[in-house]
Amino acid sequence: MKKPSTNKPKGGRPTVAIVAIGDELLHDRLDTNSHEIQTILLQHGIETQVRVVVADEVRAIAKTLHSFLANHSLIICCGGLGPTQDDITRQAIARVCKQPLLFQPAMYQTIIRRFKKRGVKIPDCNKQQACFPRRAVILKNRFGTAPGFLLQTKSRMIAALPGPPGECRAMLEKELLPRLKRSRFKNSNREAVQHLRIVGMAESQLQEIIGPRLTQHPDIQLGFLLEGPGEILIKLQIRPTNKKQAQAALRSAVREVQQALGKSVVDRRGRSLPEVIGRLLLKQKQTIAVAESCTGGRIAQRLVSIPGSSKYFVEGAVTYSNQAKHRCLQVTAASLKKYGAVSAEVAMAMAKGMRQKSQATWALAITGIAGPGGGSKSKPVGLVYLGIAGPQGRRAAKKLQLSGDRERIQCWSATLALDWVRRCLLEKQAVGKSLTDLKRIKIVP
Amino acid sequence: MKKPSTNKPKGGRPTVAIVAIGDELLHDRLDTNSHEIQTILLQHGIETQVRVVVADEVRAIAKTLHSFLANHSLIICCGGLGPTQDDITRQAIARVCKQPLLFQPAMYQTIIRRFKKRGVKIPDCNKQQACFPRRAVILKNRFGTAPGFLLQTKSRMIAALPGPPGECRAMLEKELLPRLKRSRFKNSNREAVQHLRIVGMAESQLQEIIGPRLTQHPDIQLGFLLEGPGEILIKLQIRPTNKKQAQAALRSAVREVQQALGKSVVDRRGRSLPEVIGRLLLKQKQTIAVAESCTGGRIAQRLVSIPGSSKYFVEGAVTYSNQAKHRCLQVTAASLKKYGAVSAEVAMAMAKGMRQKSQATWALAITGIAGPGGGSKSKPVGLVYLGIAGPQGRRAAKKLQLSGDRERIQCWSATLALDWVRRCLLEKQAVGKSLTDLKRIKIVP
Repeated sequence: MKKPSTNKPKGGRPTVAIVAIGDELLHDRLDTNSHEIQTILLQHGIETQVRVVVADEVRAIAKTLHSFLANHSLIICCGGLGPTQDDITRQAIARVCKQPLLFQPAMYQTIIRRFKKRGVKIPDCNKQQACFPRRAVILKNRFGTAPGFLLQTKSRMIAALPGPPGECRAMLEKELLPRLKRSRFKNSNREAVQHLRIVGMAESQLQEIIGPRLTQHPDIQLGFLLEGPGEILIKLQIRPTNKKQAQAALRSAVREVQQALGKSVVDRRGRSLPEVIGRLLLKQKQTIAVAESCTGGRIAQRLVSIPGSSKYFVEGAVTYSNQAKHRCLQVTAASLKKYGAVSAEVAMAMAKGMRQKSQATWALAITGIAGPGGGSKSKPVGLVYLGIAGPQGRRAAKKLQLSGDRERIQCWSATLALDWVRRCLLEKQAVGKSLTDLKRIKIVP
Repeated sequence: MKKPSTNKPKGGRPTVAIVAIGDELLHDRLDTNSHEIQTILLQHGIETQVRVVVADEVRAIAKTLHSFLANHSLIICCGGLGPTQDDITRQAIARVCKQPLLFQPAMYQTIIRRFKKRGVKIPDCNKQQACFPRRAVILKNRFGTAPGFLLQTKSRMIAALPGPPGECRAMLEKELLPRLKRSRFKNSNREAVQHLRIVGMAESQLQEIIGPRLTQHPDIQLGFLLEGPGEILIKLQIRPTNKKQAQAALRSAVREVQQALGKSVVDRRGRSLPEVIGRLLLKQKQTIAVAESCTGGRIAQRLVSIPGSSKYFVEGAVTYSNQAKHRCLQVTAASLKKYGAVSAEVAMAMAKGMRQKSQATWALAITGIAGPGGGSKSKPVGLVYLGIAGPQGRRAAKKLQLSGDRERIQCWSATLALDWVRRCLLEKQAVGKSLTDLKRIKIVP
């Protein structure tokens, strides 16, 4: 690889540039890869200095690469490795590095096998995916046809990763990172940072509670990341000067924040709500079932997204119509008529019916009006009732009045429902006390 | 507003800059807002010239705004309108425009009411959200506490929108865009572009089929957008010189592509798969129910995400365990034992059970191994069976062998399952012929 003459990378710390390639990133598509690459590198203590988006044009890509080679130890290109004529990342890198592109028959056989496995004939244009600059190390693609590669000299590296996000992430983590950790980046330290997941509190409330407590921790930087409606990650960060000291200072700040927020902290390692619930259920050898109306399967889907959830997730029902509520959950026609499908009574009846039917330890139910239609003056769009049935047949309901469009109301109410389950499980675990206090019908938030 | 002396915006066409504000966008969070703003503006024929991300620092923001004011007609700022001390977009704009920030008591009352409605006491720090530069027009926030604003002179506009994506989008569409359309942007035309949604074909296959057919349409630009595993949007675009002519040329190209791809085109206006299925069901006055194992509610959730889906979505069941498959869907213990839970026979039995139970016209069932655990040599991770039961009790199954992680397998198999339903509905609609050809067990993709 030719080394441009100007400015070497600065002294000890190697520097990184990310180049996202593709016309679509300038118009139609979000460049999620650059951000994901940056995040994963940072988790391994590798900081990115610059990110840029370039069109599918050999000369434009080559120009960018050339200027970055002058200033950065590592350039990660992403995208443009596909089979079509606008995929020209290979050519651009080969040109900048003055290496010819060579066809590698063995790699082509691997690509052919992938098509065969899917029962599809390989189009001719996939042949270019088996061409690599001479001296490049091939990076395997577990999830797609486009292999990546890494070109390396004493002081510079250029990597090419594929554009589809799943393929890009997998190749970065499994193929590229291990090679980086054996090279100039072996001394990179994970930064001292911790994320606390919070559900059901507003950013301003959190600031009021945490702000004053952190005045004794001047080295800690506080940040808030919105994870979705009703869900926030608190980010506590410290620049590592002395690593051990930094870790201790961070731990002490985390303790402080956790004391102030109590059970509102879902997890102090940032784990997701469904994962935390799964761990609590496994620990207590309990199970859960879900009956959903307005969320249409969203709560079940979030619980089942966790590997191993078959150990505690028994069953889900999406009972969208009144008939389904009656047929699947034994909600009586009388209560549907008297209280309406969106009511505390029906939410509790749904939970009771689901618990009896599934024999799960806990049953969660949700019924509401996600909109945009279906609202009225007394029952407006965004009105949602949660019902829960737990050990010894104890039951409770909770009323929510949310705002936003259909997507937001569905997502937000699913989050608050899952958080309620988490709080019930915690109460059980902590003191084994009864669920009587759940019998109140509360209004949140 | 002071007008910087250098370079006026160029002649006729007004130009736009987007400034995303927030430390988190440089580190932890994807800047989705800029992209969304750009996309929505483009739909109204307004092109963005530059996008930049700036840290939460008054001087840095002011510097950026100052340089953009020299070259652009409209600057849209996004983020930094929150209640905490790092929210300083208001101050930065006020400084650049040399307008004092004034406290607006009426607006503060609106914010207080929003907190009251949620039953929460308003923290003091929210007061700053009611401060605006003099002469600013306030933009209402339907979904959050932070109002936005718009400052306007004869030749320049600066808008401030809130950071949370839902709030940002709503304010842009409902408050800012109507004002833009009444101002310098009133002559902006929607561009001539059309998206065709495709399921179950690879990008390279599409290129091979479509590429040659578009040689007769040299003005049409072809692009591919990956929507998710198994789902692609074909983008056909034409630069509008003469608008009528462009539209006609585009229509002709769309027809050509559609003829070449036949039923693989889910929709030629880019509508989503659940929306297309919903329209077909409504048209045929039919209903659907879903029984899911490995996708855990994802298919039901996608169907129910469409407003008005209560008219055709009858019921969903997430039968993750064998017991649940037996209890809810009458799948016999014998077939579970003989064929295994992941088999064509059980998929069809699940569909049959769900159809009988729900009385829906169609029942779709899915069972598979999403991983990472649970696979074996004969039934590896990624093996998924679909079952369908339709009018006159006709049934069929389909085998899929997918690759990737849990999330990818769940998402991909849900997409292919929905697409199968769509194809069944089309066959019915087109010729009213029997479903006998569904009885084969096919291997896709």
